[in-house]
Amino acid sequence: MSFNTFGHLFRVTTWGESHGPALGATVDGVPPGVALTEADIQPWLDRRKPGQNKFTTQRKEPDEVRILSGLFEGRTTGTPIQLMIENTDQRSKDYGDIAQAFRPGHADITYHQKYGVRDYRGGGRSSARETAARVAAGGVARQVLAALVPGLRVTGYMVQMGTHGIDRARFDAAQIEENPFWCPDPVAAVEWAAYLDDLRLSHNSVGAVIEVVAEGVPAGLGAPLYGKLDSDLAAAMMSINAVKGVEIGDGMAAAALTGVDNADEIRMGPNGPEFLSNHAGGILGGISSGQPVVCRFAVKPTSSILTPRRTINARGEEIDLITKGRHDPCVGIRAVPVGEAMMACVILDHLLLDRGQTGGQRGIIG
Amino acid sequence: MSFNTFGHLFRVTTWGESHGPALGATVDGVPPGVALTEADIQPWLDRRKPGQNKFTTQRKEPDEVRILSGLFEGRTTGTPIQLMIENTDQRSKDYGDIAQAFRPGHADITYHQKYGVRDYRGGGRSSARETAARVAAGGVARQVLAALVPGLRVTGYMVQMGTHGIDRARFDAAQIEENPFWCPDPVAAVEWAAYLDDLRLSHNSVGAVIEVVAEGVPAGLGAPLYGKLDSDLAAAMMSINAVKGVEIGDGMAAAALTGVDNADEIRMGPNGPEFLSNHAGGILGGISSGQPVVCRFAVKPTSSILTPRRTINARGEEIDLITKGRHDPCVGIRAVPVGEAMMACVILDHLLLDRGQTGGQRGIIG
Amino acid sequence: MSFNTFGHLFRVTTWGESHGPALGATVDGVPPGVALTEADIQPWLDRRKPGQNKFTTQRKEPDEVRILSGLFEGRTTGTPIQLMIENTDQRSKDYGDIAQAFRPGHADITYHQKYGVRDYRGGGRSSARETAARVAAGGVARQVLAALVPGLRVTGYMVQMGTHGIDRARFDAAQIEENPFWCPDPVAAVEWAAYLDDLRLSHNSVGAVIEVVAEGVPAGLGAPLYGKLDSDLAAAMMSINAVKGVEIGDGMAAAALTGVDNADEIRMGPNGPEFLSNHAGGILGGISSGQPVVCRFAVKPTSSILTPRRTINARGEEIDLITKGRHDPCVGIRAVPVGEAMMACVILDHLLLDRGQTGGQRGIIG
Amino acid sequence: MSFNTFGHLFRVTTWGESHGPALGATVDGVPPGVALTEADIQPWLDRRKPGQNKFTTQRKEPDEVRILSGLFEGRTTGTPIQLMIENTDQRSKDYGDIAQAFRPGHADITYHQKYGVRDYRGGGRSSARETAARVAAGGVARQVLAALVPGLRVTGYMVQMGTHGIDRARFDAAQIEENPFWCPDPVAAVEWAAYLDDLRLSHNSVGAVIEVVAEGVPAGLGAPLYGKLDSDLAAAMMSINAVKGVEIGDGMAAAALTGVDNADEIRMGPNGPEFLSNHAGGILGGISSGQPVVCRFAVKPTSSILTPRRTINARGEEIDLITKGRHDPCVGIRAVPVGEAMMACVILDHLLLDRGQTGGQRGIIG
Repeated sequence: MSFNTFGHLFRVTTWGESHGPALGATVDGVPPGVALTEADIQPWLDRRKPGQNKFTTQRKEPDEVRILSGLFEGRTTGTPIQLMIENTDQRSKDYGDIAQAFRPGHADITYHQKYGVRDYRGGGRSSARETAARVAAGGVARQVLAALVPGLRVTGYMVQMGTHGIDRARFDAAQIEENPFWCPDPVAAVEWAAYLDDLRLSHNSVGAVIEVVAEGVPAGLGAPLYGKLDSDLAAAMMSINAVKGVEIGDGMAAAALTGVDNADEIRMGPNGPEFLSNHAGGILGGISSGQPVVCRFAVKPTSSILTPRRTINARGEEIDLITKGRHDPCVGIRAVPVGEAMMACVILDHLLLDRGQTGGQRGIIG
Repeated sequence: MSFNTFGHLFRVTTWGESHGPALGATVDGVPPGVALTEADIQPWLDRRKPGQNKFTTQRKEPDEVRILSGLFEGRTTGTPIQLMIENTDQRSKDYGDIAQAFRPGHADITYHQKYGVRDYRGGGRSSARETAARVAAGGVARQVLAALVPGLRVTGYMVQMGTHGIDRARFDAAQIEENPFWCPDPVAAVEWAAYLDDLRLSHNSVGAVIEVVAEGVPAGLGAPLYGKLDSDLAAAMMSINAVKGVEIGDGMAAAALTGVDNADEIRMGPNGPEFLSNHAGGILGGISSGQPVVCRFAVKPTSSILTPRRTINARGEEIDLITKGRHDPCVGIRAVPVGEAMMACVILDHLLLDRGQTGGQRGIIG
Repeated sequence: MSFNTFGHLFRVTTWGESHGPALGATVDGVPPGVALTEADIQPWLDRRKPGQNKFTTQRKEPDEVRILSGLFEGRTTGTPIQLMIENTDQRSKDYGDIAQAFRPGHADITYHQKYGVRDYRGGGRSSARETAARVAAGGVARQVLAALVPGLRVTGYMVQMGTHGIDRARFDAAQIEENPFWCPDPVAAVEWAAYLDDLRLSHNSVGAVIEVVAEGVPAGLGAPLYGKLDSDLAAAMMSINAVKGVEIGDGMAAAALTGVDNADEIRMGPNGPEFLSNHAGGILGGISSGQPVVCRFAVKPTSSILTPRRTINARGEEIDLITKGRHDPCVGIRAVPVGEAMMACVILDHLLLDRGQTGGQRGIIG
Repeated sequence: MSFNTFGHLFRVTTWGESHGPALGATVDGVPPGVALTEADIQPWLDRRKPGQNKFTTQRKEPDEVRILSGLFEGRTTGTPIQLMIENTDQRSKDYGDIAQAFRPGHADITYHQKYGVRDYRGGGRSSARETAARVAAGGVARQVLAALVPGLRVTGYMVQMGTHGIDRARFDAAQIEENPFWCPDPVAAVEWAAYLDDLRLSHNSVGAVIEVVAEGVPAGLGAPLYGKLDSDLAAAMMSINAVKGVEIGDGMAAAALTGVDNADEIRMGPNGPEFLSNHAGGILGGISSGQPVVCRFAVKPTSSILTPRRTINARGEEIDLITKGRHDPCVGIRAVPVGEAMMACVILDHLLLDRGQTGGQRGIIG
């Protein structure tokens, strides 16, 4: 949990700016002997890739990942894996206007205050481009998880765009890949398309809520209190650009429940304990219960909009600013694969931590 | 962070169970030369202390903190401060019934699964008693902050109990200390008393939302991406027992905003930049902006209730269980001083991190 | 590896000063289910205890360890173990003379320079008393190792006192417990007694070299480069007060060897690879080879002597200073159990790290 | 201090193998605003570069460093700096013979045992090539140190080759750059050339001792016990390939000293305290004293030699092996710039840590 590192045993350090020559992730602590090629990672990057439809930035980046280290004859060696993605479609000229101005809602002003210097091209390190490195690292995590915990599955989707939520009664996992919003509700997906188009054409943008679910997570991952699985998930999701809230299970709505309603009652099933509900989101006392781990996070609306906003520049002058360039009207869309990647990284990290401390043995029930 | 440690430079490791001889916190990385005595810490513990009214557990714990190390002639020496709080009112017999049963909503089953062994007395390490150690550590953090950043102020209060929120129009900071709920809305406080009494008498419990605000935080604290101020706040708050959601600024509601509405516009004030709103909760790109840092978290209802719930025991038998003992009908009440403590710890940690990396120098505006 | 923490997964944070009410260690990451009582730890502390003969300080400390947390019904629960040792024989008046003076060879001046404040009583945190906490933590590590790796044995002994080394031809492990110096050479032990007595009576002190060997360490512990087993051993031993050098295997003498001589040739034995020599000290490329892990460290002579030395005080005045009090003429003697404790902690930590990353599986030979 | 990361605030993660496409270092925590270009780093790499004379490996690597991130307009931005060095002169065929054989003295067998898989080409991650990444990171550290502590100077040199030490009476710093051994004694340098030539021609190799001195280090860097400056130096130097011993100040020889001799007496000079000797190597109680920080380490002889040695292969068969390829007869030569780099990294890290905790303020003397 250093400035740019995430994880305890499975550790990811991302590096690179929006408009430098490249960006990437240094992934350390990878278990050895796992089959891995660039082709295992690329599909996840392709899902996050910009420019795929009118609802994401028109920047064209192939986002091709290269593995520079840590593999031998197609398997992980247990040494650091360097994942590099070259930046190819940089148009720094787009950013001349904002070199000395602080875009409202952006990190421009805080980077300037903290560091005294700022790579203003595309937001530098605070650009959503950084998330490509996370997705690549998540691809490694997924490949390792597939080898260690067959059946574990991580799925992300959008459950709310702006003021429009999905109807849970229409939830259909098969729909997630069928629309540009990773929306599991096909009716909502149609409504969102019109809604977002209107916002885009009116030079506006909008926020979203993403839900990420991990099924097949073994019971026993996590640790009390500061190494909690949910504590690390909260840090992971909040570390994604533009995220302002994180929920586990019922999340903020848990506040409105009574203890009678909130209790996830337990019965004995053929393969062990079964919970009759999942208000807890699969985590009790910081430790996974074997139920699906459910995490949601809110992404604020894209701050880069063509509607002028009042701000100042580095000389302290008051100005009005519109942010040109190629921006997502709902950056939450591309946050879906990013949230999945973070979930995969956190769960793998805790899997390794758990077998480090306990050897992976489990207390017996029944 | 580690299993039971929180923080980078200002590091807190808590230890101890509900029903062992003592619990406490080992606080490392404390700046030297800061005046500190037990009397500086005790008042914060007294605010969290159980048994003060009918709305909190009737367990009577003096929660007297002893400083065992790290001080010399009333000042911090820069070496680890050991804070110890003895457990005095332990009634282990209260817990005989649940020795082999898994209370729904509790960590009983996950501790059992992970560790194979479990200190069932009072929930052991997963007890809310652990938060006393946090509050003590937070007292140290506050004292250091007072020395380093005069004017910095951390305030927590409850903004929602169950289905009842406060009316922001009636917000009066002076009211917070005037009712048992740390409620800034005096009308809501009266309503909540009746509401909670009803729940308590019907053997039920309820959740809550706590808001913690830090005013006077200098701009520039935090770091990009994984060492974000908000990422660490999210981890800190989510690490508190029973917390299920964390929000910064507008939090989950940011999803419903448009970019036009969400932009915190900036004007130039007499002392530097001034923001016209604070949707961001004082943090942009992971770095403090100088605005108040605003964090909210949801606490689920107390899982220990006198209403029977269906569950199983370690033998895999299905049983009905009521949880006797002395429990808070709304554990969120006592989470208020805990949230304040975590906020103080996180901000101090980032203050030290920032002056480590940047020397505390700030970029100039104007 | 924070200011006062050692270890990755098995993490020890020590706290406390020589003359405060107590000192101790917070031990986190302990595997659950391991039988442990204070009686398992106390014997190791008794070996380090001062005042046992004329060759160690006459301070009388029972050094009784209390376990305040992390156990339930005689077994570790996987939660932090707090080990507390009360200071009972404090004579702060002994230290009045040096309150404002900087004893040569001591940390007085550097603590003063760094922190501006200093607990001068007994050296505060820089006192050799801190090592009691390490020995207690090492007792926990040994108990866990005994459960996880039957047959693993850690043994420390002195191989050089001042200018007098042992004769390896007379090495007899059975002799180690038979003399006050943990000396495996019975002839040397007799010589050292006279030698040290002379030094003590002439108000002088002397250094020593300690060797610690771990037998039965499985192959495969450690990690390339920065998480090397030898790198962590070097840090561990150098972190002990007064240590000035650390060697693995042939250590500094490896510089004088040729490649032909240094090669530990390998043959195939009935149970796998067998090395024909152990210049490497059981570690190749940072990873254990299955041979005995051999580590040596040099302890400088006790700086507190009754012979006057030139120095200055905090007012910048030049003075002559003798250091009264109760001091070890050869502090290296009591460093033997401390070195053993650090070896046990490092090996356990790497055992947990290894099974975290690799699951403890080993590459096949033959 | 993860598997492949070194440092607390100034953190270096190296990655890459001897025969992969590239290797490098991810450097995090760099203070912002420091002037830095590739030309500032390249000279340090050129000093380490192989193939410069007959005493180092004939592998020809330009070792050109590229900075992929963390700079803007020639200055550090405070975000991660990615340093990449491409491998260009790979001759994997050189290593076909040892694909399944374990070279004595190498990490082949332990990597195989731990990971089950091993990149045998050039030793993979255990190759001395990894040290190029350290030297590049050290170049960044030096540039930052030059900005923060003018006058601080780090110098490394060889003091012993095989059985031949330098004569300290002939020490001449100006000679260090004048011979292929970084030897400060011009007479010794001539002798060593003949000595090493003989060894090389007889298919042998030899070890060495390197000394690294940092002058101008401010007093007050370091921390008690586990975050000691010397503890981190020991870990840093021991993490270099082939290092078997580390000494601070008098090092192992301190064991032979008496307390009277070892005391570095202190007098008051015009600019503060002055020590009359430096047995302590500039570190007391883990904290720098303002004297030169003196560290030595022993490098074992190159294990790759043309003289046959007995060993086994992965099938468990006993074989005789000679190691062809292009190897250094004394790998200690190229360890000189590596030791300097590690010293620079450790001192910068502790400089940042110190100003984090104390604000860089110093206790007053006089």
